[in-house]
Amino acid sequence: MSTDVTEGADDPTDWRSVEPLDLTPILSASLDAFYESGFHGASVREIARRVGVTVPSLYYHHQSKEGLLIALLELSISDLRSRALAANDAGDGDPVQRLTNVIFTIVLQMTNRARLAALEGEARYLGPENWERYRAVRKGVEGLVLDIVHDGNTSGDFDADDPAETTRAILGMCQVIPRWYHAEGVHSPEVVARKYVEIALRMAGATRAPDMPTNSEPTEHAS
Amino acid sequence: MSTDVTEGADDPTDWRSVEPLDLTPILSASLDAFYESGFHGASVREIARRVGVTVPSLYYHHQSKEGLLIALLELSISDLRSRALAANDAGDGDPVQRLTNVIFTIVLQMTNRARLAALEGEARYLGPENWERYRAVRKGVEGLVLDIVHDGNTSGDFDADDPAETTRAILGMCQVIPRWYHAEGVHSPEVVARKYVEIALRMAGATRAPDMPTNSEPTEHAS
Repeated sequence: MSTDVTEGADDPTDWRSVEPLDLTPILSASLDAFYESGFHGASVREIARRVGVTVPSLYYHHQSKEGLLIALLELSISDLRSRALAANDAGDGDPVQRLTNVIFTIVLQMTNRARLAALEGEARYLGPENWERYRAVRKGVEGLVLDIVHDGNTSGDFDADDPAETTRAILGMCQVIPRWYHAEGVHSPEVVARKYVEIALRMAGATRAPDMPTNSEPTEHAS
Repeated sequence: MSTDVTEGADDPTDWRSVEPLDLTPILSASLDAFYESGFHGASVREIARRVGVTVPSLYYHHQSKEGLLIALLELSISDLRSRALAANDAGDGDPVQRLTNVIFTIVLQMTNRARLAALEGEARYLGPENWERYRAVRKGVEGLVLDIVHDGNTSGDFDADDPAETTRAILGMCQVIPRWYHAEGVHSPEVVARKYVEIALRMAGATRAPDMPTNSEPTEHAS
């Protein structure tokens, strides 16, 4: 799917570095429109006008306005899932390091791709079929974090009272980052990611500190 | 203001119990419309039709579609602020108890008033003037929690590494509750509130347990 809707050669297994996605012109204009006006407020005619294509030509690629939304959401959540899985693998079976890596890469997405990540709030406007598809991938990410918390409880590295609620709270605090990051972002994405890793480890009741990941490339925000 | 837009005699200082707000028919229909279609997707004509009033009559009370949104948002955030202040006062100067009470009442709002609380996601569509008014009240709530975390750090009851980021993370995990609570709510609002209090105390690094608040009335969800 990614060859269809993205350009460039972003590597989704490079969980330490999350660059803005290279979107096709149609998807880029759709993201702008959804961000400015919400799904129901966005106009397909206006999106087509911005890209310089006709509405029929836009529908040829994406069928409907919902087709544009699900394309963006799937792109976002699939990439998040790939990086979360790679981050988990890099934790070499250690629950503390797995949680650290996974939260690090998730927060990089919430900051470096804040507008795309904020689109999550529009997912509830999807029709039942697309919603179920999207939800399944998202549940997979939640399941990954839940497994890590469970494993840590078992190994004695964590002592979360309620692993499911702890998982939801950890992902919830990350999910809301796009709402404030653009407006208030005084820290680089990497600094925010490290702070949230520390907080997530507290939430799980981690008994020891991880190796804190570093970004694989220098960020332009860092001072 | 509350006599203008609400009916009923809900007491905003009763932080242990949060009932759904009694909205006027116009605001109730507006909340439905904003929830279903987002701010830009909602139609004032359709809202007026549902209430059975003319569009001019609706504008007589609320000036514009943005007037409807800010009325709902202010109602929500002012009530949340009143209850948070009352909850803080009831903590008698003890940071652990103050944080406990404040998070307890905030989570009750996020669950018992999930649709109203979810409207927070539409606040970014406010014009600059309304946005600043709304943001000021919201910042007040954030400032209250930040003060508690600072006080707890000073008294040795907490050891938050970064009080500002911890505060944002605590409020963030609460803010996102309305997104999943309706769909997945297997716990009563009170049970969710207690779980989130426990998690928030971990995030702040609380060194001791609080008196856990109980709801001032039996909830119908409780089994």
